[in-house]
Amino acid sequence: MAAKKPLITLLTDFGLQDHFVSVMKGVILNIHPDVNIIDICHNIPPQNIFQAAYLLKSSYAYFPSGSIHVVVVDPGVGTDRNPIIVSSGKGHFIGPDNGVFSYIYAEDQTCEVREITADHYFIKPRSGTFDGRDVFAPVAGWLSKGVGFSSFGELISAYKKFEIPQPVLVQEGTLKCKIVYVDRFGNLITNFSRNQFKEYLDSSEQRRFAFRMGDHTISRISQSYTEGEKDEIIAIFGSSGCVEFSVNQGNAAKLTSLGAGTDILFKVA
Amino acid sequence: MAAKKPLITLLTDFGLQDHFVSVMKGVILNIHPDVNIIDICHNIPPQNIFQAAYLLKSSYAYFPSGSIHVVVVDPGVGTDRNPIIVSSGKGHFIGPDNGVFSYIYAEDQTCEVREITADHYFIKPRSGTFDGRDVFAPVAGWLSKGVGFSSFGELISAYKKFEIPQPVLVQEGTLKCKIVYVDRFGNLITNFSRNQFKEYLDSSEQRRFAFRMGDHTISRISQSYTEGEKDEIIAIFGSSGCVEFSVNQGNAAKLTSLGAGTDILFKVA
Amino acid sequence: MAAKKPLITLLTDFGLQDHFVSVMKGVILNIHPDVNIIDICHNIPPQNIFQAAYLLKSSYAYFPSGSIHVVVVDPGVGTDRNPIIVSSGKGHFIGPDNGVFSYIYAEDQTCEVREITADHYFIKPRSGTFDGRDVFAPVAGWLSKGVGFSSFGELISAYKKFEIPQPVLVQEGTLKCKIVYVDRFGNLITNFSRNQFKEYLDSSEQRRFAFRMGDHTISRISQSYTEGEKDEIIAIFGSSGCVEFSVNQGNAAKLTSLGAGTDILFKVA
Repeated sequence: MAAKKPLITLLTDFGLQDHFVSVMKGVILNIHPDVNIIDICHNIPPQNIFQAAYLLKSSYAYFPSGSIHVVVVDPGVGTDRNPIIVSSGKGHFIGPDNGVFSYIYAEDQTCEVREITADHYFIKPRSGTFDGRDVFAPVAGWLSKGVGFSSFGELISAYKKFEIPQPVLVQEGTLKCKIVYVDRFGNLITNFSRNQFKEYLDSSEQRRFAFRMGDHTISRISQSYTEGEKDEIIAIFGSSGCVEFSVNQGNAAKLTSLGAGTDILFKVA
Repeated sequence: MAAKKPLITLLTDFGLQDHFVSVMKGVILNIHPDVNIIDICHNIPPQNIFQAAYLLKSSYAYFPSGSIHVVVVDPGVGTDRNPIIVSSGKGHFIGPDNGVFSYIYAEDQTCEVREITADHYFIKPRSGTFDGRDVFAPVAGWLSKGVGFSSFGELISAYKKFEIPQPVLVQEGTLKCKIVYVDRFGNLITNFSRNQFKEYLDSSEQRRFAFRMGDHTISRISQSYTEGEKDEIIAIFGSSGCVEFSVNQGNAAKLTSLGAGTDILFKVA
Repeated sequence: MAAKKPLITLLTDFGLQDHFVSVMKGVILNIHPDVNIIDICHNIPPQNIFQAAYLLKSSYAYFPSGSIHVVVVDPGVGTDRNPIIVSSGKGHFIGPDNGVFSYIYAEDQTCEVREITADHYFIKPRSGTFDGRDVFAPVAGWLSKGVGFSSFGELISAYKKFEIPQPVLVQEGTLKCKIVYVDRFGNLITNFSRNQFKEYLDSSEQRRFAFRMGDHTISRISQSYTEGEKDEIIAIFGSSGCVEFSVNQGNAAKLTSLGAGTDILFKVA
């Protein structure tokens, strides 16, 4: 990171109507005026840890290695849940120990995780309601300024992680997948990757397949959003690398009334 | 651009609830960490090419010359519509060839337009659903880092442009104008400029005039929003240089139920 | 400010759907490409001067001293209200003279206030509807570039300020406080500070107290949002340093239907 301009990203559920995000930026810039701060997203639904984890997974790898990613979706603020700092091959991650870094742990099993205990870096008095300002922003600022990863606390081996949702075989020839995210355009993004699709189709030695999603059956993969007819649900490999369901110039989420968490069946025959 | 800090602006319909905008920034900063990235707007209604073109026209000239403006409102992503790069006297413009740069072409007829074919600059594999990440962001990053305009592809002379909406004479003494944009405050912004107003009034040798807009008739130009009474529609030359219709501390769009695309008659007598 | 990278913050009611904020940034960067621009908030309800003043007060002190804070919530744009520039021990403040800096004046009584009259710094022609672009952004740009505070106009001693809302004793043992802000999470933030709470309880030599807010009575201070039961209103000292009313993983504003401006009684017994 030495030669590059240091970069901190922010991902929160603070929204953009209050001063919370800007206060975090002020705290960081007060410590380190030469850092570049980039917003990942601040419109995570309040306290939705999974969605924050998913957006972090979907974006961090595009940033320069060595970037510092701060995530504050923190329903347990003020309790004894720990603030943690994670170091992976791709960068650092700072936030509460509530599972929000589960995808990071899964993608780099050599991650190191430290409990942040070095409270001389914190803003005092620590409010108990806004660790984004009092804990996470200053730690990010000092880390970006060169304070070493090991200065913030001891390595820990017990930390929260949730199970990454994966397609499961529910019976011969049938996988159960899941919608994990709905984007602004109403695209229904699943956890079923292009590689999993190929492998499963190859292994089953079948050529025909169908997705069953609510009342809809989709039996081919489209190459572009524009292949669909008006109000037709299409399946496409989206930018996440996974199958998503879309409507050409429409909104699949509204049309189907389905959302994140919905199961989808994938059958070969 | 050599001496100045390079600047890239982003204008999309991606909204701020997902990770799309930040991923574009990550891609750019990964290529060129020292570039300054400024958001023009990300809340263009999905796939509304005209509105993106209008906001681009309304903002780009205020940025330093040599700035790089990336526009991603792209209903044709994944089809054979071309990615293009445009060079005008004011800067560079990168986006899909769908007419979104129509105002740029109209304001600088010496623009050069190139089809972007140099796919070694793209993120691989190119997803087919997110050229903002895979094509436009990396091209902007490399351009900002000094790769020459001509390196991205050949000059083309056929590219999409829509007709810029202009007031038209519909009968002696009557011009038909149009609401082209509605802003956050509900101001109804037309395509009828201060210069056109003056010229037309001078040429018609008339002193009295009236705008007819839905059920409303407005027969003077106000100097400030505060001149109107409660719920009175006023006409004013707004910051765009064109006539707009407003309500003092109110919302003209809500009060009139009119929006972009509505015709307005301007009569002299 | 000499050695540090200059920093300009923006706080407006312009929203994020139009080009207004980005045009201000373009104007600033055109004057001074090396300034760092940070958004405080752009979602102030249109023309809500008090809310802008409150968010400014809640954020500016976290930024490096010497920062330049531009506030454009300006219902009087185009009238003879003055543009002003304020210098306090913490930084500079630029905006309309409509009371939006009232908290700044209250927190630093040595503030100097100048009417901005040096119109050679303005964008011409000045539109009369967008001083953010034509007046405030260029003044901020030139100030950040080193033009002296005194260059922009004369010191003035008469300028608008509103009374900062403070708890008042309405009868022996009863203070009337006020909700001054509602945040994204529905927390109801009052003007009753931790210090005022302590002093009043000490001076009254009472140990028991109760807040009366609409139909709700709250008679203890919680230490964390998580202490509340489902749909229970709790009182907590929030990150503002004042009492706020909250619901554990819920929304106190929705639950109570109360908002900014509501009186709350604090009784000791």
